[in-house]
Amino acid sequence: MTSTEIPAVVTGDAGIALADVTAAARTAAGWLAETSLDARAELLEAVADALDAHVDELVAIADRETALGTTRLTGEVARTTGQLRLFASAVREGSHLEVTIDHADPDATPPRPDLRRMLVPLGPVAVFTASNFPFAFSVAGGDTASALAAGCPVVVKAHSGHAELSRRTAGVVADALRAAGAPAGVFAHVEGRETGVALVQDPAIRAVGFTGSLGGGRALFDLAAGRPDPIPFYGELGSINPVVVTRAAATARGRQLAAGLTGSFTMGVGQFCTKPGVLLVPADVGFEDAVVAAVTDAGGRPQRMLTTRIAEQFRDGTAALADSAAVQTLVGPGETVEGAATPQVFATDVAALLADTDHLLEERFGPACLLVRYLDEEELHAAIEVLPGSLTATIHAEPDEDVADLARRLRELAGRVLFGGWPTGVAVTWSQHHGGPWPATTAPLHTSVGVSAIRRFLRPVTYQDAPASALPAALQEANPLGVPRRVDGHLEVPGAGGPSDAT
Amino acid sequence: MTSTEIPAVVTGDAGIALADVTAAARTAAGWLAETSLDARAELLEAVADALDAHVDELVAIADRETALGTTRLTGEVARTTGQLRLFASAVREGSHLEVTIDHADPDATPPRPDLRRMLVPLGPVAVFTASNFPFAFSVAGGDTASALAAGCPVVVKAHSGHAELSRRTAGVVADALRAAGAPAGVFAHVEGRETGVALVQDPAIRAVGFTGSLGGGRALFDLAAGRPDPIPFYGELGSINPVVVTRAAATARGRQLAAGLTGSFTMGVGQFCTKPGVLLVPADVGFEDAVVAAVTDAGGRPQRMLTTRIAEQFRDGTAALADSAAVQTLVGPGETVEGAATPQVFATDVAALLADTDHLLEERFGPACLLVRYLDEEELHAAIEVLPGSLTATIHAEPDEDVADLARRLRELAGRVLFGGWPTGVAVTWSQHHGGPWPATTAPLHTSVGVSAIRRFLRPVTYQDAPASALPAALQEANPLGVPRRVDGHLEVPGAGGPSDAT
Repeated sequence: MTSTEIPAVVTGDAGIALADVTAAARTAAGWLAETSLDARAELLEAVADALDAHVDELVAIADRETALGTTRLTGEVARTTGQLRLFASAVREGSHLEVTIDHADPDATPPRPDLRRMLVPLGPVAVFTASNFPFAFSVAGGDTASALAAGCPVVVKAHSGHAELSRRTAGVVADALRAAGAPAGVFAHVEGRETGVALVQDPAIRAVGFTGSLGGGRALFDLAAGRPDPIPFYGELGSINPVVVTRAAATARGRQLAAGLTGSFTMGVGQFCTKPGVLLVPADVGFEDAVVAAVTDAGGRPQRMLTTRIAEQFRDGTAALADSAAVQTLVGPGETVEGAATPQVFATDVAALLADTDHLLEERFGPACLLVRYLDEEELHAAIEVLPGSLTATIHAEPDEDVADLARRLRELAGRVLFGGWPTGVAVTWSQHHGGPWPATTAPLHTSVGVSAIRRFLRPVTYQDAPASALPAALQEANPLGVPRRVDGHLEVPGAGGPSDAT
Repeated sequence: MTSTEIPAVVTGDAGIALADVTAAARTAAGWLAETSLDARAELLEAVADALDAHVDELVAIADRETALGTTRLTGEVARTTGQLRLFASAVREGSHLEVTIDHADPDATPPRPDLRRMLVPLGPVAVFTASNFPFAFSVAGGDTASALAAGCPVVVKAHSGHAELSRRTAGVVADALRAAGAPAGVFAHVEGRETGVALVQDPAIRAVGFTGSLGGGRALFDLAAGRPDPIPFYGELGSINPVVVTRAAATARGRQLAAGLTGSFTMGVGQFCTKPGVLLVPADVGFEDAVVAAVTDAGGRPQRMLTTRIAEQFRDGTAALADSAAVQTLVGPGETVEGAATPQVFATDVAALLADTDHLLEERFGPACLLVRYLDEEELHAAIEVLPGSLTATIHAEPDEDVADLARRLRELAGRVLFGGWPTGVAVTWSQHHGGPWPATTAPLHTSVGVSAIRRFLRPVTYQDAPASALPAALQEANPLGVPRRVDGHLEVPGAGGPSDAT
C-alpha cells in the first residue's frame, strides 16, 4: 500500500496496518522538514481557518459527546485556532530554530572550525488526546500544533470519549492540510487502546505527547522508555494544584475567596487538569463555613461528566476520601444520577495530612476539593513540604503581606505560581508554562501550553565547516530568513536595531 | 550528621551514608538557586582558577593513571577551565534564564493575566564521569560545569579508571567552592558502582549526567526512568561516527585523507567518543591501500589503554570483527602487550554490511576502524540508511561536488555534520552540539558540550500576577539584571540597541 492510498482518518475497523500509517508519516517527515518557515506557518493557519469554518458543526458534535456546553466549547475552538495562529507567527519569526553561529578562529588553541547550530525536527510524533478538552488538547490541540510547527508529522491517537468529534476534526484537519499542499502522511488519526500501545513502540515514532491519567500515562511512559531506542515522552498526568490562603486573606475576604474557589473547582464539572484540588487554609476563621455557603449558594444540581467511567471514578474516589477517619465531609454527594456528579467539599488538618499523604493527596478528577486546616506557619510549611508536584500553586494573601518566602516554597513543586486568581484559566502565550515536577508531567523541562511547547519536538544539529551550498537557509551567513541569531556569542534580533543597524 | 560534617570527598571506605550526602546537596540547592548571576559565575571561575593553579600536580596523577600523556592532559585541563569560564560568561549574560514576559491584557477574551516565565534550577544533579577524558568529562568537566552554572548542586560519581585523580580534583574543587563562600553540599564526590546505582535512585537527585558505555548507560537510564518519580537521564553512550568519502575525493587525495583518518582514529589510542569508526569509501580506487600505508607509516607500537578491561574489550571486539567471514583484516593486531593496543583496520562491502548490521556496526572503543566499500550512490545511500545514531557524521568531498543531499541524509543520524576535517576535535562554544539520536545519547534534545548544555538542568516556572516583592530579580519589570528578554512577544537584547535604546 503506498502512502497516498492510506486515509488520514483511520477508523478502528478499517483494517489498515499501523505500520503503513507510520511509514507514511516517516516519508512525509522529509517533506515537512524542508518546508520554508512561511509555508509551515501557512499549514498551521490553514488548519485554524478550517476549524473556524466548521465551528458550529464541530461544537454540536462535541456537546453531544462531552456535555461541556456550547459556550465553553465554542470558546475552546477559538482558543485552539488562536493557538495555531500564535504558533504560525512564532514559526515565521524563527527563534525556535535557536540559530547559533561561531565563525572559525584559526588562531585559537586548538584552531576552531566554523560551527553553526540550529534545531531540526525530531520526526513523526504520536499525540494522545485528552478527554476534557475535546479541542484544545485533542486532535488539533497544543501537541499537534507544536509538532507541526516544529516540522514533525503527527499521528493522533483519538480519545474514545469523543470519538465522533475526533474523526470529524481529523477529517477537517486532513482536508485543510491537503488543500494547503501537504502530502499524505503529514497527519493521521488512529483509534483504539491497542493501537495506542503499538504506536508508542513503533520504530517510526520519535516522540510522544500525552495528556491523561497518571495510570495510563505512566504505562505509556514506561513503554517509551523501555524501547530498544527510548524516545521522549511528554506526558501531563495529574495535578492537585494546591492553593494557600493566608490567615489575613481568609479573615479579610473569606466569602469572596470561597465564591472564587467554588467557581474554579466546579467549572466544567471539575474536569480541569488545573482544578484547585487541595487548599491550605487557616483554622478557626470560618473559612470552611464560607466555602459550604458558597457551594450551597451556587446550587448543586447533578451535571453530566465526560464519560460514565470518569463519573464512577469520581464517585469512588470521593467516597474513599469521605471514609477516612480524619476527613470531614462538608458538602457530601447529593442526588445520585448515573454519569453525573455534584460538588463535594472535604476538610482535614495538617496532622492528618502528614499521617496519610498518599491517600489524601490523590487527584480526584471532578468537582471536589479538600480543605486542609493549618494552625500556624510551621504547620503550613510542613504541609507544603509533602505536596506532590503540580501544574500550578496559588497564593491568596493580602496586599501588605510579604509572600516571597511562600512563593519560593511553592515554586519547588509547581510550574506556575499564581498570586491571587484561580488556576483553571491557562492563557496561551509566549510566557505560559504548563508543566511541573512529577507527577504533573513526565518531563519537567517541557510545557504542553505556550510557544515553547514547540521545542519538545526539535533536536539540535551543528554544521561544521559546511559549504554555503549545503547549509540550510537558516544557517546561511546573510541570514536570508531574518531569524534571531547568536553570532560569535552576541545575540542579534533582526529589525530590533542591533549593532548592524546602528546609525 | 549535619551537612557541614560530611566531607565533600567521600571515599568508598569512609562509611558515610549516601543519603547524608544527598541530603546536604538538597539543603545547598536552596542557597545555590538564590545566588546572583555574578556570584554563580564567580564560583565557576574559582573552580577554574584552582584547577589551573594545580595543573602540574593533577596532570602528573592523571598521566600515571591514564597514560594519555602530559601534552594531551595539560591541554585537557585548559579546555576544562576554559569551559568553566565560558559558562561563567554565559551565566552573567543570563540568556539561559529564558526570561519571557507577557503583560496583562484585560481586553483579551478571556482577559489575560500578567505572566512571567524563567528557568530555575532542577535541584541536585548526579554526574557519572567518563574514563577517557579525566578532566573534560570528569569531576570538573562539562556536566559539573553546566549543573553548577544552572544552579544545581553536584554529586560526582567517580570513575575507577582514574580514582586518585578524581579524589584530588574533587578536593581542589571543594576547597575552591568553600573559599568562594559556597556551603557544604554544593559539591560532593562519591565512589563505587553500588553507590552509583543508589545515587540514580536517590529521591534528592533530580537529574543525571552520564558519559560511558552503552551497557552501563542503558542500565542506569532504566533505573532513572523506572523510579517512582522518573528523572531526566542525560547519557552519552556510544557512537561509531560514520565518515563518507566520495569517489572524487578518494581519487583526488586518497593518501592525504588516509593520513588524516589515521591521525584521527588512533588519537588517544582511539579512546574518543568521536573516533571515526566506520567509513563508507568508494570501491576500486585504492583507498584501502592508502589507509594501510598510512597506518604502517605511522608505526604501530602497542600503546597502553585507559584500563586493562578496556584493552581486553578492544581485543575481543576486534577479534570478533576479524572472525566475520565477510570482513577482511587489512591491518591486524601486532605485538600483544597486556593492557595495550595497536591500530587495526578492517574492510567489508555494503552487501555484507546490510546482511549483518548489528554486529558490524558495533562501537569498538579503541584504535580500529572499518572501511565499507560502496560501488555506487545507491549502495552508499542504502548503507547510510542502516547506520545507527551517532554524535557526528563526516563528509569528505571535492569542492565542486554538491553535497547538500548527502548532508540531509547524514543529519538524520547525527548531532554534528562535518564537511572535511575529522570528528575527534570538539570545540567548546555557544554553537557546539555533542549529542545525537540513540544510542549516541539518551536525550536527543540535549548536548553535553557547549553552552546550551546548561539547559539540561533547568525547568521553567511562570509567575502569574505576582507582586514585585515576590518576583525574582530576573523577572522584575525594570530588568535590573540586564538579561535578554522576550517582552510581549518581542525579543530585547540589552546593549544591542533595541527599541528602548533607539535615539
